[in-house]
Amino acid sequence: MLSLAELQHRIASGDLAADAAVAQSLEAINAHDKTIGAFVCRTENARATHAGPLRGIAVGIKDIMDTADFPTEMGSAIYRGWRPRGDASVVMMLKQAGATIIGKTTTTAFASLDPTATVNPRNPGHTPGGSSSGSAAAVAAGMIPLALGTQTGGSVIRPASFCGVAAIKPSYRLLPTVGIKCYSWTLDTAGLFAAGVKDLAHGLSAMTNRPDLLPGAPMRAPRIGVVTQDFAGAPEAAGVEALRIATVAAERAGASVRALAMPEIVAEAWRIQPVVQEFEAHQALAWEYRVHYAAMPPILRARLDESRETTPAAYDDAIKIASQGRDALAAIFEGVDVLLTLSAPGAAPKGLASTGDARFNRLWTLMGVPCVNIPAHVAEGGLPVGVQVVARFGDDAGALAAARFVEDALARR
Amino acid sequence: MLSLAELQHRIASGDLAADAAVAQSLEAINAHDKTIGAFVCRTENARATHAGPLRGIAVGIKDIMDTADFPTEMGSAIYRGWRPRGDASVVMMLKQAGATIIGKTTTTAFASLDPTATVNPRNPGHTPGGSSSGSAAAVAAGMIPLALGTQTGGSVIRPASFCGVAAIKPSYRLLPTVGIKCYSWTLDTAGLFAAGVKDLAHGLSAMTNRPDLLPGAPMRAPRIGVVTQDFAGAPEAAGVEALRIATVAAERAGASVRALAMPEIVAEAWRIQPVVQEFEAHQALAWEYRVHYAAMPPILRARLDESRETTPAAYDDAIKIASQGRDALAAIFEGVDVLLTLSAPGAAPKGLASTGDARFNRLWTLMGVPCVNIPAHVAEGGLPVGVQVVARFGDDAGALAAARFVEDALARR
Repeated sequence: MLSLAELQHRIASGDLAADAAVAQSLEAINAHDKTIGAFVCRTENARATHAGPLRGIAVGIKDIMDTADFPTEMGSAIYRGWRPRGDASVVMMLKQAGATIIGKTTTTAFASLDPTATVNPRNPGHTPGGSSSGSAAAVAAGMIPLALGTQTGGSVIRPASFCGVAAIKPSYRLLPTVGIKCYSWTLDTAGLFAAGVKDLAHGLSAMTNRPDLLPGAPMRAPRIGVVTQDFAGAPEAAGVEALRIATVAAERAGASVRALAMPEIVAEAWRIQPVVQEFEAHQALAWEYRVHYAAMPPILRARLDESRETTPAAYDDAIKIASQGRDALAAIFEGVDVLLTLSAPGAAPKGLASTGDARFNRLWTLMGVPCVNIPAHVAEGGLPVGVQVVARFGDDAGALAAARFVEDALARR
Repeated sequence: MLSLAELQHRIASGDLAADAAVAQSLEAINAHDKTIGAFVCRTENARATHAGPLRGIAVGIKDIMDTADFPTEMGSAIYRGWRPRGDASVVMMLKQAGATIIGKTTTTAFASLDPTATVNPRNPGHTPGGSSSGSAAAVAAGMIPLALGTQTGGSVIRPASFCGVAAIKPSYRLLPTVGIKCYSWTLDTAGLFAAGVKDLAHGLSAMTNRPDLLPGAPMRAPRIGVVTQDFAGAPEAAGVEALRIATVAAERAGASVRALAMPEIVAEAWRIQPVVQEFEAHQALAWEYRVHYAAMPPILRARLDESRETTPAAYDDAIKIASQGRDALAAIFEGVDVLLTLSAPGAAPKGLASTGDARFNRLWTLMGVPCVNIPAHVAEGGLPVGVQVVARFGDDAGALAAARFVEDALARR
């Protein structure tokens, strides 16, 4: 994979021309994307910009994010050839930091569950996960050092786990969703994919102009609460193994580790997450669902069909439970620095019919807390399985620092 | 003015054909809009729909809201001729309730402060206020029974006050902002303009499918806290008079009324509101500001120029203060049902150079609480001055009920 931080270092030191760094990504895309299918469209004559911390960094943008320079098709025939007038805020943040937008990456239709044709670079017989399928696959295949995705249920952390890359779903609203196709305004969160945790930190810091996100002095060993999310059902053996490996590695590296049960109200928040998600989707996608019903992707359409009768009162109750869950979770962070939990039930499912299950992700998206995926295990078939580090709301720096601690611990074992 | 509730009643009883109700609005627009200038564009052959509580109701949509059937120009040359692919969620809510979208109403560029050419229907030598200039003016001039606007600082309540119409800025996120041009995601709130409070209630209830918003049995006299917002500076004589008249009328009608001071943290929230607003605007309007700097409207551009150096840390602090302010305000509502306060410093300023001042509005937008404007006084020059009823977050039904109580009290005096 292409390390963003390493590219930055080589460009800054004069070892690598910024244009050559971008050209390297273009060549890699030309070499590999015919078999991977991570890009919807891309520029053929990309150049580096002249300044900024992300100069020479080629970035892929999930195709539900508005771009003035590329079509934005939302993974759906309803938006075929659609060209927004302007760039989404996150795209402008990248440009202002000097990055080069190299193309648009595949997304399941409207960032829901209908799969794309993208394959998993670690094993092309398996899904890369979704909904940010192309962004995860493009980074995993070494085509680009940075890609943007979004998560409503588990659309950043799950594909990162399946493809064996690092990814962060930051705190809710650390990154603006302006110009990003909305599914659920309470949940939708933009996130980053990169080779390693340090690369994520450099990318997110440059986009947001927040130097406190950069890796600092070696972190003191964190207090880690290990969460199995029993309310979400049983994980597969590969998921259990990934969490076990990461837990042991962190403990050996000096972290204080203990199992942590979630209070009932947090489990209840997990249960009502779909009520929030689908009630809002009915409003966010009202035009598509009502005016283009026949052209709606079938899995999403069935979901919306099933949730048509959700009442405003049920939604209000769900929002209340979510708020109580956030308060209860905040109290838990009085006793630990971060949580360590599953990124997905197990390795990427076989075939491309399903992008996998978000049941170990959706609670954290609803809680709005930052989550970082770290590859922890390689299961049968060369399929990666990740774990996620979860920090308190607003503590993205802490999430990144602890994730780097776990990443280091895993590398040294 | 055209009363939505009365039109509904006449249509339901067979006294008025739904198509005739729509035709009446088209005729009124043709008769009056040449002098008022409330519409950017409109349909010439509008028909009523076949069903729904808003059948026969012609609605004007602020031109920062996406419409598939009309251009959406954001009040700016940067979006001249721009045609979105789909409808904003609020537009779909109206259509699903059976309303007829009759046209797009004028907006200051990007819902900021650069004025439109719309005049105040009560006195054409004065501004109608902004940013929802056309929506307030179109209802005030009797052209349509319902119009949508948005408020980031005071863009719904202020023009309603200046034009002498009822308006509600509901609780934050009661109405989705999906498909509405964003200025500040923490603040932007869609709202409604109509002839009276009952009309607002019928419109909002139909859009949201929330029957609890409908006027019920006569409300018991509310406990009212009168707030002068001293932190916002002194009002003009006409503003003072409007608040005095409304206070006396409510008390005579049986309300328990007492003066209420706001705690220091709420005043502090008022002070930091511009930090939140402009920091987010820099991200929301990054493409326009960076790529089309020369074409940006001058007042907005100057605002953005002045706030370029706001740091993420200053923004984070402001968000924290806002959150503390919301908690303090929630505690205040333990002792009163609603607050009664100024809708604007005074009557509409002379001329069209300024849309007036949002200093008596911006706190409540930041607090996310529902606000209802009621005309209370007519100042020199026939210029209306309103007051606003403010309820606790989520209590839109209570805000409407208390506003109706005050409206009745004012009518009976």
